[in-house]
Amino acid sequence: MPQSTTLNRRILLSSRPVGAPTSEDFQLVSGPVPQPEAGQVLLRTLFLSLDPYMRGRMSDGPSYAAPVALGEVMVGGTVSRVEASHNPRFAMGDLVLGYTGWQDYAVSDGQGLTKLDAADPHPSHALGVLGMTGFTAYMGLLDIGKPVAGETVVVAAASGAVGSVVGQIARIKGCTVVGIAGGAEKCRYVVDELGFDHCVDHHSSDFAAQLAAACPKGIDVYFENVGGAVFDAVLPLLNTRARVPVCGLIAHYNDTAKNATTPGGPDRRATLMGTLLRKRIRMQGFIIFDDYAPRFGEFHTAMSTWVKEGRIAAREDIVQGLENAPSAFMGLLQGKNFGKLVIQLADAP
Amino acid sequence: MPQSTTLNRRILLSSRPVGAPTSEDFQLVSGPVPQPEAGQVLLRTLFLSLDPYMRGRMSDGPSYAAPVALGEVMVGGTVSRVEASHNPRFAMGDLVLGYTGWQDYAVSDGQGLTKLDAADPHPSHALGVLGMTGFTAYMGLLDIGKPVAGETVVVAAASGAVGSVVGQIARIKGCTVVGIAGGAEKCRYVVDELGFDHCVDHHSSDFAAQLAAACPKGIDVYFENVGGAVFDAVLPLLNTRARVPVCGLIAHYNDTAKNATTPGGPDRRATLMGTLLRKRIRMQGFIIFDDYAPRFGEFHTAMSTWVKEGRIAAREDIVQGLENAPSAFMGLLQGKNFGKLVIQLADAP
Repeated sequence: MPQSTTLNRRILLSSRPVGAPTSEDFQLVSGPVPQPEAGQVLLRTLFLSLDPYMRGRMSDGPSYAAPVALGEVMVGGTVSRVEASHNPRFAMGDLVLGYTGWQDYAVSDGQGLTKLDAADPHPSHALGVLGMTGFTAYMGLLDIGKPVAGETVVVAAASGAVGSVVGQIARIKGCTVVGIAGGAEKCRYVVDELGFDHCVDHHSSDFAAQLAAACPKGIDVYFENVGGAVFDAVLPLLNTRARVPVCGLIAHYNDTAKNATTPGGPDRRATLMGTLLRKRIRMQGFIIFDDYAPRFGEFHTAMSTWVKEGRIAAREDIVQGLENAPSAFMGLLQGKNFGKLVIQLADAP
Repeated sequence: MPQSTTLNRRILLSSRPVGAPTSEDFQLVSGPVPQPEAGQVLLRTLFLSLDPYMRGRMSDGPSYAAPVALGEVMVGGTVSRVEASHNPRFAMGDLVLGYTGWQDYAVSDGQGLTKLDAADPHPSHALGVLGMTGFTAYMGLLDIGKPVAGETVVVAAASGAVGSVVGQIARIKGCTVVGIAGGAEKCRYVVDELGFDHCVDHHSSDFAAQLAAACPKGIDVYFENVGGAVFDAVLPLLNTRARVPVCGLIAHYNDTAKNATTPGGPDRRATLMGTLLRKRIRMQGFIIFDDYAPRFGEFHTAMSTWVKEGRIAAREDIVQGLENAPSAFMGLLQGKNFGKLVIQLADAP
């Protein structure tokens, strides 16, 4: 559905999902395009980033950020074009990075907007490899994981927006890099296109044995994006003084409130803590902009260089049309995307 | 039973415990006092340290140190007197810190022995506040916990050898310190004698509510010695960017091999990892001499000063007679000791 110049489509959170989100939890509504007032700009969304953290914002359980209110627009990072400006900092036609959510248009007073290079052939990279997901990969791996050349780094969700960058940085740093991904096609991509040393398919019935075989010297850094059964296979392979940056736990994001506190089955907490103690492992969670905002410039300089030099490849999974955002997001939580998931709402300039 | 000058009593590991150790797992045997050869010294044990880590050495599961072999003397730190010396570094009457285990006598070539001040009125402190347990408290709290004045530090096993020192150092550093201990008498001691701000009895039926009330600003550093139900109450109180040094998990040391990997009941691992992520918590295990041996001097200087100034109190639970070591050790795993548990084998000089 092409973007209208007179209607603003918005996708609202209509109910809080219990377990996996369904299309019922979202509502597409249309209304007039908002009018910018003095000091404001009108933004037209070109690209919307879809990311796993949004699942947390749909719930009202404890989180590091306030939930989206029922009836409000779903949040999300965006690349937009300035359509009208009553703000001297911005001119019509400027491209900006913002956080205007799942909608065609938004007005802004300019706070929190970052101007992008209008000549950049890949403005959507500001949502991915040169934006939040690349920054997450860079700081989590380098500041918490602290990989040393020759060490073994294992990355879950290896074909995803964060995992793919983590692994490529680890290769640049001289590590042996083993990816974990779902399916043979993703695994081939991770090895053939991204240059990981190995990739193991977590759908395989002998996944744990394959992972052990791919890590004959154990695991020094495990970049945690997943949790669940993947972590079960990783834990016994962690070496003494291993580091585990905890970036995400997508396997658990659809746990219900009840399940999240009391899932059935064996209690794996004592085994985890006993392993941390015995092997003197450091495990540390992080939330990228809360913890590392002042270091964005350092990241951006390094990553832009690597991308220009062709040392970091960034695959995008671009879905056309705002109306397809809910189904694309539901697929993301099931690992159906292949690369950074971005919704394209309008043609780039 | 007084120490003989002609017989060497030794306590051997006779079987590997399944669950809690029993007296059947230990065997007291007697034999001749060993004779030192050229370069060796004969050591008579005055004090034997009993510590929770010894439970791990009784099992042959994965650990950071080799298990005690069946039929071998139980390991342990000792303060001994040199009874005969064929080694120019030592003279008869010298007091030394060593690791000669659960026995009256040992010979040594001098390697690993540290001479103690023979005039020290409390030579057994070399096994506690000025030795392994004090060093553990010092490095775990300061190097991993990194407490800042005004923060809230919670210490489990607060009347024990490590916990009591952790809390007192945290007080010196200007923190609010909340202890957790078993029983009203221990709690009174922790507050009245050690100067903690509060102490909560984990035997109380409303323990979790009492802990929350004692920590109105949440928990910034939790020094983990225990695991299990105590950690259940701590986890929801941890603040953003909290630090959790994992020093011990005594609640789990008697888990059987089967239970340790698959205990029943709710799986608390996902909740733990989700909390680490959401609150950006750092959790890190450590093994004191493996990780920090080069910093023993720094610790010893600081701690000796604090003890001399009366700023750190060190309570010992001294049990007389090597033959009582097994029952004292079994009690230690159940929290029956009150202060640093030491077996006195002979009168100090």
